[in-house]
Amino acid sequence: MSDLGRRAEELDAADPLAAYRDAFVTTPGVVAYLDGNSLGRPLRATGERLARFVAEDWGDRLIRHWDEGWMDAPTELGDLLARTTLGAAPGQTVVADSTTVLLYKLVRAAVDARPGRGEIVVDTGNFPTDRFVAEGVAAERGLTLRWIDPDPLAGVTVDDVRAVVGPGTALVLLSHVAYRSGAIADLRAITDVVHEAGALVLWDLCHSVGALELGLDDDGVDLAVGCTYKYLNGGPGAPAFAYVAEALQPSLHQPIQGWMGAADPFAMGPRYEPAKGIRQLVSGTPPIVGMLPVRDMLALIGEAGMPALRRKSEALTAYAVEVADELLLPLGARLASPREPAARGSHITLDHADFQRATAELWRRGVIPDFRPPDGLRIGLSPLSTGFAEVLAGLTAVREVLEGGSRGD
Amino acid sequence: MSDLGRRAEELDAADPLAAYRDAFVTTPGVVAYLDGNSLGRPLRATGERLARFVAEDWGDRLIRHWDEGWMDAPTELGDLLARTTLGAAPGQTVVADSTTVLLYKLVRAAVDARPGRGEIVVDTGNFPTDRFVAEGVAAERGLTLRWIDPDPLAGVTVDDVRAVVGPGTALVLLSHVAYRSGAIADLRAITDVVHEAGALVLWDLCHSVGALELGLDDDGVDLAVGCTYKYLNGGPGAPAFAYVAEALQPSLHQPIQGWMGAADPFAMGPRYEPAKGIRQLVSGTPPIVGMLPVRDMLALIGEAGMPALRRKSEALTAYAVEVADELLLPLGARLASPREPAARGSHITLDHADFQRATAELWRRGVIPDFRPPDGLRIGLSPLSTGFAEVLAGLTAVREVLEGGSRGD
Repeated sequence: MSDLGRRAEELDAADPLAAYRDAFVTTPGVVAYLDGNSLGRPLRATGERLARFVAEDWGDRLIRHWDEGWMDAPTELGDLLARTTLGAAPGQTVVADSTTVLLYKLVRAAVDARPGRGEIVVDTGNFPTDRFVAEGVAAERGLTLRWIDPDPLAGVTVDDVRAVVGPGTALVLLSHVAYRSGAIADLRAITDVVHEAGALVLWDLCHSVGALELGLDDDGVDLAVGCTYKYLNGGPGAPAFAYVAEALQPSLHQPIQGWMGAADPFAMGPRYEPAKGIRQLVSGTPPIVGMLPVRDMLALIGEAGMPALRRKSEALTAYAVEVADELLLPLGARLASPREPAARGSHITLDHADFQRATAELWRRGVIPDFRPPDGLRIGLSPLSTGFAEVLAGLTAVREVLEGGSRGD
Repeated sequence: MSDLGRRAEELDAADPLAAYRDAFVTTPGVVAYLDGNSLGRPLRATGERLARFVAEDWGDRLIRHWDEGWMDAPTELGDLLARTTLGAAPGQTVVADSTTVLLYKLVRAAVDARPGRGEIVVDTGNFPTDRFVAEGVAAERGLTLRWIDPDPLAGVTVDDVRAVVGPGTALVLLSHVAYRSGAIADLRAITDVVHEAGALVLWDLCHSVGALELGLDDDGVDLAVGCTYKYLNGGPGAPAFAYVAEALQPSLHQPIQGWMGAADPFAMGPRYEPAKGIRQLVSGTPPIVGMLPVRDMLALIGEAGMPALRRKSEALTAYAVEVADELLLPLGARLASPREPAARGSHITLDHADFQRATAELWRRGVIPDFRPPDGLRIGLSPLSTGFAEVLAGLTAVREVLEGGSRGD
């Protein structure tokens, strides 16, 4: 056995979270699932939960269940998510819509809450949907986008933000963990700098939630959104969440006025009167079925605790870098993520001109990373469902494919 | 046996769709489910479909399934829904978001497509979310709402519309079937009148789809939305659908610019370039899990055919009126729906000052209509899952509760 193999064995043996891997559905033929940062594996409990929901909650209670839990699901699940993963007190988080739609609501609400300020700060490294939403809102509200062009490895820094914010800034929209490099932005320090300029900050937590310890209340965050299908294993297209700090709620007005965000949905009165508090962010009928799978994962996270998940996450990416250094960098791959574990989220990206071709071949071999243009192989390592030997098996296959070997050679 | 009981027995025996009732989950203790127009019953197949999805599509294919079907799900399911229920050719329907969010996108897109026209026509009888969305868009775009105040029994008529549209009208937003009275608006004639004025029409089909035969293409409809959790049995908060006539698609631009509505979602380029065609209506990641249950119902509807469903729907509401005439009108209830079966959708509403109290008692007895303020008892009769004897049992219980009797008396 190679030194790397022995290391993997030792790390798996010493992993206090190793037993959690049995909670997830295994996939015959998949040697290494390295894409839990894009779509988390389902939990074994989830299929049964969905079937039971159909028979019992929906089938047995029918419409009566709206009064027995569904009406409150957006805020009740939001509070659970906030307590388990966001470091946020109740009453500030809602589960609804998609990340894109919630971004739209919050960007609109934020710029309207800072009248007379004409700029939204965004960065070129942010995920497309964040940039597209900002571009659309800027166009419709006659605002200007002020671009940060960060060093991809460092991500957006405090200095980057300080250099662009000012009395004209309405909103700063950033991702906490960069979707490509995994670089972590300094959430607390940047939030402070934005506040000093009198602007609001909106953090996209898609690649943070369930992988990093968060403390939104302590850090003074204004607004945040995120998805539940990555490290929260909520299933493809599961609803998103939004956080609005309590102090800010009375001054925000989101634009998509729907009956489920009204003060009394069943009054059905002549004019829209928004609900008080975080519920005002809801528009249409809550997506109850889509909200179900994430509950199983939140229960596991609550049991294991985010500090333990974060330690495992750092250990996994550290080991992946160790393996990449030995197996892949000699073949011309470059690490496109920070070298310091504490400076990155739960994925690393490697660049190589041959990775687009390689990804197709890896998928055929049951090794599943994802490809991000122009030449990035993204290795996502979901703390509860990924093992160290799996990382080694996956990156060993990457080496074989780069060397041009195929399974039968 | 009473005459009404004999009639129910005859109608059930002669019902060509009677066998379909076995396809739905039955609910112990529920004597009559009269709320399929609010939340359709689950199909027996649905729990198994969801569990199989978790094990196979999600668990087995993992991220790979995005390339193997999920990416196309919004338009593929949209086309299936269009063919089965809307009378619409492919490429014009998408499944996404909630009805409210899709209404917002289409109202925004429509008024922007008619620059220089300052009015949105709405009616006081429309469902709250429709009115709230129109109110919000009017406020943010500096437009005026022009109100129709229809006769509740007749619903919005062609003359009502003709009286208010003109060169200042950008959009007319109406429900095809009124959520309270069930009155059907003359979709084709109203669409023509709106077009003569140079405006666009947006039809809310929430209470039509799966209950009425629709021919959106033939009727020249511009825009439509609807939900999938009523007569399409998609489950609580299932995603909604939107229809945009092909000819109109190039001139519309919806405001919530997300990566999944971009021409090439994985190009992740610097600027938003909308997809061509109906896909431009998509914003965030499609809600795949929430889209699953509706497929079982669309398969049944495809098999039975909308003409047969509509015949059964008319027969059910006609029988409900017959029973109400004999059992409930003598106790002071009033029919708040059209008397002519062809003039109403698949529900009727009865008004009585005592119905709010009665609804709670009916629910306890396993008879489940819903209550709509100020004093409406809404009786929804989903064609494939409701039987005539069930209607009689339900309305008999309504009589008992109005008379002040309780089960043990």
